[in-house]
Amino acid sequence: MTGQFIGVGVGPGDPELITLKAYTLIQQADVISYIANAQGESQAKVIAAQALNKAAPKQEEIPVVMPMCDDRNIANGIYNKAAGAIAEAIQVGKTVVFLCEGDPLFFGSFAYLLERLQDQHPCQVVPGISSVHAASSALQLPLTMLKESFAVMSGRHSDQQLLDTLNNHDSVVIMKAGRSRQRILNALKASNRLAEANYLEYIGREGEYIARNVQQLQGEAGPYFSLFVVTKQERDRS
Amino acid sequence: MTGQFIGVGVGPGDPELITLKAYTLIQQADVISYIANAQGESQAKVIAAQALNKAAPKQEEIPVVMPMCDDRNIANGIYNKAAGAIAEAIQVGKTVVFLCEGDPLFFGSFAYLLERLQDQHPCQVVPGISSVHAASSALQLPLTMLKESFAVMSGRHSDQQLLDTLNNHDSVVIMKAGRSRQRILNALKASNRLAEANYLEYIGREGEYIARNVQQLQGEAGPYFSLFVVTKQERDRS
Repeated sequence: MTGQFIGVGVGPGDPELITLKAYTLIQQADVISYIANAQGESQAKVIAAQALNKAAPKQEEIPVVMPMCDDRNIANGIYNKAAGAIAEAIQVGKTVVFLCEGDPLFFGSFAYLLERLQDQHPCQVVPGISSVHAASSALQLPLTMLKESFAVMSGRHSDQQLLDTLNNHDSVVIMKAGRSRQRILNALKASNRLAEANYLEYIGREGEYIARNVQQLQGEAGPYFSLFVVTKQERDRS
Repeated sequence: MTGQFIGVGVGPGDPELITLKAYTLIQQADVISYIANAQGESQAKVIAAQALNKAAPKQEEIPVVMPMCDDRNIANGIYNKAAGAIAEAIQVGKTVVFLCEGDPLFFGSFAYLLERLQDQHPCQVVPGISSVHAASSALQLPLTMLKESFAVMSGRHSDQQLLDTLNNHDSVVIMKAGRSRQRILNALKASNRLAEANYLEYIGREGEYIARNVQQLQGEAGPYFSLFVVTKQERDRS
């Protein structure tokens, strides 16, 4: 009898954007695990509960409480402890399903648990819809066509990195725009791509906001779950 | 009574990777549309039929038969005709669901129909799991972590574009590797990233093949549905 560790993407927010596979695995899991904030809240758990149409799963849980902090030592200690608890559950034959917003391996914390467990235990990863694809669907705007190149950056990149990428790639998504919003707007202006940019917050969930004219955003910061989508105005169809 | 045009991603191949939303929309559609080859075959239709667990949908169909050719004039004529047929169905109140492999707005033909219909008719897009996310899940390899940058190229890009991107971005996916496989291997060697590359064909469907040592691929071409995933060996966790 051997258990396993399964990272499952629950998608960007709309509970209907969960996959059939994720739905079944969450339903059948012995243990549900997820990242929670200091208040014990987890957006991934909310999405999963809505998708399964129940208020709170009755399954055993391993919440991984992660305080807001930039100290990697504290975070590493928390991941070590969580990996230990998950390993214990696997060893007694339990299936542990770890809920991830969006896709498990795209900018998520699941990677830190997977790297601690994948050499000693059976692991599986089930992809989810990432906010990149949710954004282009919400905008009804092709992300990439034919020979176009596409890059994903984040608000954590430097001004120069943002500018180089905007100059060198046809389509660019800049995730986690939040506190870096003004720097990103500056880079869009410097690369002459302000008119080619769209901005989205909280796609497919409460508080969704889409700005097709990003100039109106000047001077304000935004939430963590916000991104810019930049595509060429004249697109090569040959 | 007004119909609508809905592009629906059916995911990368595994029928369980379809979303709840796609499942419901396909089931309730008045008309199913899709790109078919000269033999009338459609991989997206096969995935949808497997997901819905039936041999062939009984719904009305608008197949868009697209021969293998590089002549955009021929393709444009076919898209014009298909958009006309879809518009007619919408005008009599029908919901037309267009099936797309992977995600509808990520390198797909759906974009050409959407641009012909979205100004005059109600349209909707439902994102799907792209092969990019399916690949990192199959490899159990994080695509992006923290401050990493990520770029997607295709075998249609030039040697210099591939090399620049491999030199400038931490994680790189090169899609549609097929006929360009040797050129891509050359660019991986020139950027000193051969050891950081993985190669995948037909992820999650019949004929799936994963090569973690890409040097063994030298000299041969591959199928259209193949890609390289390149990530840094030493990853910054700070």
